[in-house]
Amino acid sequence: MRRSAAVAAKEADGPQLDFDELPGYVGYQVRRAQTQIFADLEAALKEFELTPGSFGVLTLIRANPGITQVALAAALGIDKSTMSPVIFRLESRGLIRRKVQLDDRRRHALFIEKAGEAVFITARERVRAAEAGVAARLTKAEQRVLTRLLAKLMGRADPA
Amino acid sequence: MRRSAAVAAKEADGPQLDFDELPGYVGYQVRRAQTQIFADLEAALKEFELTPGSFGVLTLIRANPGITQVALAAALGIDKSTMSPVIFRLESRGLIRRKVQLDDRRRHALFIEKAGEAVFITARERVRAAEAGVAARLTKAEQRVLTRLLAKLMGRADPA
Repeated sequence: MRRSAAVAAKEADGPQLDFDELPGYVGYQVRRAQTQIFADLEAALKEFELTPGSFGVLTLIRANPGITQVALAAALGIDKSTMSPVIFRLESRGLIRRKVQLDDRRRHALFIEKAGEAVFITARERVRAAEAGVAARLTKAEQRVLTRLLAKLMGRADPA
Repeated sequence: MRRSAAVAAKEADGPQLDFDELPGYVGYQVRRAQTQIFADLEAALKEFELTPGSFGVLTLIRANPGITQVALAAALGIDKSTMSPVIFRLESRGLIRRKVQLDDRRRHALFIEKAGEAVFITARERVRAAEAGVAARLTKAEQRVLTRLLAKLMGRADPA
């Protein structure tokens, strides 16, 4: 009975779906917000053939010349198997270069190239605009509270 | 000069990396929290050969018997190309079944199977435990504030 009523409701493909316990989970709420924010960001970065992930990688290589792939993966919380194709793609596009370190041939130091710098600067403008659009939905005070709560959620000592 | 100092700092692979503007972005903060929460959840779901994503899919199919793949993708904010292999895998494991709808042969209605129900119930216990561990880092009042701010960030009308 309950089941066939549900089927009927679903046939309309309306928005009144049952999400069970998901909406009550903090983890689900954070995920939904992240998915939506990243959809906007993906659209903003598309013309640069960058993703939010590869933009982050480019940001860190630029800000930390000589960073290794391992350090990069750890810093962004991305696993190595996800990182490798991103690095490969940025390198093949001439946006970054890999340099074998003299002291340890297994470790490649990563550097941004001139072309990468140019792409980064323009792409960052778009990211700033997208970010501003998202942040504008909250007041400054709310933004500070959100920052604090997300840090606390990650188990970080609250500096305040 | 600045560059070589940065290289030296990086050689230590210490935590003092430069993240440029990323930490100031709400989008980045939400992403970092999501990545960390999902790492815990992935670990919790591994023994069921589920991911946070496929758990969500199973949740919605169970709660909305007969839901279509299109409605499912829209409901979870996942694109169809990501959804298809998840559905295929759940079906090949016998956790769900696809049923051609009499009124529209292009649309497959999705239903949970008995085996899927059993896996889901146990997996949900683990998800609840993981979620409780995350949520416990905030007070109940903070959880409510976070829920409200994330909804506002998504541009949802605030019901409160």
